[in-house]
Amino acid sequence: MRFTKVQGLGNDFVLVNGFEQELDLDRFPELAVKICDRHFGVGADGLVPLLPSRTADVNMRIYNSDGSEAEMCGNVIRCAAKYLFEHDLVKKKKIRVETLAGIRIPELIIENGQVTLVRVDMGEPRLERADIPMLGAPGRVVDEELEIDGTAYRITAVSMGNPHCIIFVPDVEAVSPSRLGPRFETHPAFPRKTNVEFVQVLNRSEVNMKVWERGAGITMACGTGACATGVASALNGYTGRLVTVHLSTGALLIEWAGDNHVYMTGPAEEVFSGVYPF
Amino acid sequence: MRFTKVQGLGNDFVLVNGFEQELDLDRFPELAVKICDRHFGVGADGLVPLLPSRTADVNMRIYNSDGSEAEMCGNVIRCAAKYLFEHDLVKKKKIRVETLAGIRIPELIIENGQVTLVRVDMGEPRLERADIPMLGAPGRVVDEELEIDGTAYRITAVSMGNPHCIIFVPDVEAVSPSRLGPRFETHPAFPRKTNVEFVQVLNRSEVNMKVWERGAGITMACGTGACATGVASALNGYTGRLVTVHLSTGALLIEWAGDNHVYMTGPAEEVFSGVYPF
Repeated sequence: MRFTKVQGLGNDFVLVNGFEQELDLDRFPELAVKICDRHFGVGADGLVPLLPSRTADVNMRIYNSDGSEAEMCGNVIRCAAKYLFEHDLVKKKKIRVETLAGIRIPELIIENGQVTLVRVDMGEPRLERADIPMLGAPGRVVDEELEIDGTAYRITAVSMGNPHCIIFVPDVEAVSPSRLGPRFETHPAFPRKTNVEFVQVLNRSEVNMKVWERGAGITMACGTGACATGVASALNGYTGRLVTVHLSTGALLIEWAGDNHVYMTGPAEEVFSGVYPF
Repeated sequence: MRFTKVQGLGNDFVLVNGFEQELDLDRFPELAVKICDRHFGVGADGLVPLLPSRTADVNMRIYNSDGSEAEMCGNVIRCAAKYLFEHDLVKKKKIRVETLAGIRIPELIIENGQVTLVRVDMGEPRLERADIPMLGAPGRVVDEELEIDGTAYRITAVSMGNPHCIIFVPDVEAVSPSRLGPRFETHPAFPRKTNVEFVQVLNRSEVNMKVWERGAGITMACGTGACATGVASALNGYTGRLVTVHLSTGALLIEWAGDNHVYMTGPAEEVFSGVYPF
């Protein structure tokens, strides 16, 4: 099986071209476990077949390294869109991608014939407390006190389809997400637990972010976390609605646009291509 | 640059065929760091160019993921020998491999035309205390008491070119190498520190082993550790001189032969082939 390894901010995937070779998706959960293994397989965070679609330009499926399916992933869809364009499978700047979360339309940013960045509509944020979900009286959760081990933190909560708890700090380098993250993640105020972002405001349009992902811990990049951080920064008046979120592996540009949608723009890279005996 | 990803007991490498493509070794330290990265590169424990040799069938170099060079590695040489044979580069059962540690001669075990295992001469063990090196009176270190945090352990010490401290335990699953390993590794009795093997004897020819590698911590497989374990098991009379050492990722057959050399026989697998833009 021919494949191409891609990464967006270090979140990496094995893309498989299902336009030019026959793929048996029934075998993909098991194959994902094998191929994603970083010592015995190709090594990746996920296995992503790209298939012909009846309703869009492409049907994209995302198999996690444990064999389960993910509905959508901002880092995957940027890489997939760039791949489809550069390999002449879909020669459009706006590519309609069918996902388990519905149709998403990443947009390629092309300079001198090269795809430099990809912009993705990440949908509308949900700010009402019950929608996070978070326990407490109705209303938004902006700069609200939350106590952890006797210390009062001020949090902002945003849902991007999944819950995020954002804590603004003076110096993100001084924060240990592995120590503090789990304390927020499992706080009883969040009935479905929460992702946790520690954010340092640099200026009106830039922040540094460290993330503790619900169920995954410290990860290299979290697209929805960057989106939630952009929204939270604007909600608190720390920044405008266009924010560059710096992560350890690069940056994502987050725009909370007039249509209330959050647009995420970021890099996508092809690493190498190969053949896996399958 | 075309490459082939291989693994032996989970210890994985990017092999590069230097017979059929021009390689600039000056760039390999830097390339190793990039290509070994498991998110931004191919992902491996090392980068291994195979080159024509004036004195042997092949010249093999091993670049670690930090860009430094390793002299020899039992898992690499098994994979390299199988690759050279199966890709018709060296069509011999005994392949003379030039390494920074001298010429090594892995032997292919072929059944029905398939390379099933590879046997490698790992050299002679050194048992004299000063050769480990370990502090104390002259003689061998067999079933000797060593105190760690007030607990008396009984250790056996073997050098396979690098120091090993073997501790026999009733149940290796009950041992936490990450807790105990560093205590032995940095014990003042070992002036150059030591690798640490926790070993459970199953019967006269089989043992289970968990390893704590000096400077590397818990690893999937350690060829010299398995060799030292086989020697120590025989020295203590727990086994004969032919011992199967079970690791978490598979098994190595260790033979301490009549010529005093230790022969290690184990698996080698090709995982996939690819092209890296370089």
